[in-house]
Amino acid sequence: MFESFNPTPRVLMGPGPSNVSPRVLGALARPTVGHLDPQFIGLMDEIKQLLQYAFCTKNEFTIALSAPGSAGMEACIVNLLEPNDKVIVCINGVFGNRLKESVERVGAQAIVVEDKWGTPVSVEKVADTLAAHPDAKALAFVHAETSTGTRSDAKSLCQLAKQYDVLTIVDAVTSLGGSELRVDEWGIDAIYSGSQKCLSCVPGISPVSFSDKAVETLKQRKTKVPSWFLDQSLVMDYWSGEGKRSYHHTAPVNSLYALHESLVILKQEGLEQAWQRHTQLHKTLHEGLSHLGINFLVDEAYRLPQLNSVIIPNHVNDAEVRATLLNKYNLEIGAGLGQLAGKTWRIGLMGTTAQEQNIALLLAALKDVLR
Amino acid sequence: MFESFNPTPRVLMGPGPSNVSPRVLGALARPTVGHLDPQFIGLMDEIKQLLQYAFCTKNEFTIALSAPGSAGMEACIVNLLEPNDKVIVCINGVFGNRLKESVERVGAQAIVVEDKWGTPVSVEKVADTLAAHPDAKALAFVHAETSTGTRSDAKSLCQLAKQYDVLTIVDAVTSLGGSELRVDEWGIDAIYSGSQKCLSCVPGISPVSFSDKAVETLKQRKTKVPSWFLDQSLVMDYWSGEGKRSYHHTAPVNSLYALHESLVILKQEGLEQAWQRHTQLHKTLHEGLSHLGINFLVDEAYRLPQLNSVIIPNHVNDAEVRATLLNKYNLEIGAGLGQLAGKTWRIGLMGTTAQEQNIALLLAALKDVLR
Repeated sequence: MFESFNPTPRVLMGPGPSNVSPRVLGALARPTVGHLDPQFIGLMDEIKQLLQYAFCTKNEFTIALSAPGSAGMEACIVNLLEPNDKVIVCINGVFGNRLKESVERVGAQAIVVEDKWGTPVSVEKVADTLAAHPDAKALAFVHAETSTGTRSDAKSLCQLAKQYDVLTIVDAVTSLGGSELRVDEWGIDAIYSGSQKCLSCVPGISPVSFSDKAVETLKQRKTKVPSWFLDQSLVMDYWSGEGKRSYHHTAPVNSLYALHESLVILKQEGLEQAWQRHTQLHKTLHEGLSHLGINFLVDEAYRLPQLNSVIIPNHVNDAEVRATLLNKYNLEIGAGLGQLAGKTWRIGLMGTTAQEQNIALLLAALKDVLR
Repeated sequence: MFESFNPTPRVLMGPGPSNVSPRVLGALARPTVGHLDPQFIGLMDEIKQLLQYAFCTKNEFTIALSAPGSAGMEACIVNLLEPNDKVIVCINGVFGNRLKESVERVGAQAIVVEDKWGTPVSVEKVADTLAAHPDAKALAFVHAETSTGTRSDAKSLCQLAKQYDVLTIVDAVTSLGGSELRVDEWGIDAIYSGSQKCLSCVPGISPVSFSDKAVETLKQRKTKVPSWFLDQSLVMDYWSGEGKRSYHHTAPVNSLYALHESLVILKQEGLEQAWQRHTQLHKTLHEGLSHLGINFLVDEAYRLPQLNSVIIPNHVNDAEVRATLLNKYNLEIGAGLGQLAGKTWRIGLMGTTAQEQNIALLLAALKDVLR
């Protein structure tokens, strides 16, 4: 009655997961070893160094959290905030909303800065809000909004926050490995990402990094972190370099093999080269879509190369087109999310997916389906 | 500088992860598809049915949580409890303590029933405590204590709780698939387990099941679930059978391929046959260890076949023996945990690991190392 699952392979051009390379799938399937095996501890040390490379940081606390990006988000919130803290939260898409939701669930107060979906977080509005609330503990925003394909100016936002000595919490789920992101240079205090976007690893892991200031904030808490699983002061003792590692939970051993391999691939290509590849292929895609008369949601200056929100042409059946692409071409693109559902498609060009051959296939398939 | 990771394979006879079969590793490495791909939704439906089989339940809310067992524990606690709720928590090892920690972090009050490590939860004490606190909202206990290898009488404990209309929250991390466990028949309201023990899947996933009463309790909450990531009322809409699935977070697609395969293997063997195999091989191990003069921590009546806590013989160097087993024989056994560190070894016979050949290897290796 129940049989082994053998999925039809797809070309994954949605908002993630992106295509996982045979090298990463090969690493994933290596024999499981214990989470305290010296071999595995050595692997964890390498993952830490490779994540520091990918994040452009020297942060000692740089780890791979054992759950998806949304748990990485929650880890930043629950470790750094306490009830009644004031937090400036920027919302210009689904994932900014999620930050607000998470902030409020720990009993902190969210001061919301709202911008239109498809536009970046307004640096001016944030400046005004910081001036009005200089006692805020943190500024939280999304660097690369996966729901709209918009890049916000993380560097300027973090510089502003520094002027008020306010912590910065940054969602880099879709930016890490795909566009410029410099944690130390920009002064980001807490950042989280996902394994399944521009790193092209399997879904389920969240890279996280805390600055020394963030770690100090965690250590100085007056209340316990409300989540035991996400309490990073406990997780630190498992990931820390010195001496014996203390058990917290059983690490997702094989997923970490895969993350390591995807980071080795990134290091081999070079981080800036990877950013450049995403930009270049985005241009190719943009040109091709223009020929088909398909327009972008976001202004050119703020477009994410790895996540292209395009406006669904008039008189086109959204669900039908996506189903045909999937069934006839084994090609997945993403639906619009939230208030953009039915209005946009999200075309991912992330990590391994960002290749000429995939763009050619998508353009040919779209031409066929839309004619 | 950084190279692909190629671990030396180990025989995993610790407290988990257990050995993952080539079939499951093969499933794990199949091409990643989208988390909303109809193929994948179909797989989720099968996982649900197979987990219902493994838990012996008809619970509609039976899912695989996208994080390790300790997150499964926290999911039960944060969804069913609210601040100031009174909870009877039974502690007879590390994982009972963890339950208490989790209960207190949500602001609920833990009424502790303590028993000596290596003995089961006392049904009498729980009866007295329920009589003294008939207003308790829940009774939380560990069915199979992984830190000591002790089985508690889940059936009797749940029957008692029913008399007081108290919810039951049960840790089945080490029991699921390894020893008798009947969620519906015993009247368990919320149960969590792990993928990496007797299911012999890769670590990182937590099977969870809620009774209708538990689901109703969640729906009737006065306060929001403090964790967005673990809010099962949101997760339900992604796992539910009817109509369109709504996106909550990106599921760990490949790990769920692996879980599915491990459950198909369990179904093919038969659940009761799997329980029996664990019992039988435990006897073989017990006999062999007796010949070596090695004694068990736990009385025969309460011993878990899949997790054997044995007392480290006098004048033996704990760390040295485990290191030699690992380095010379590629054989991992577990150290004692908490107050049993340095006093016991934990020998796992879980899932795929529970085979004659592994017992023969362990006995031969121990004989060599201890002589």
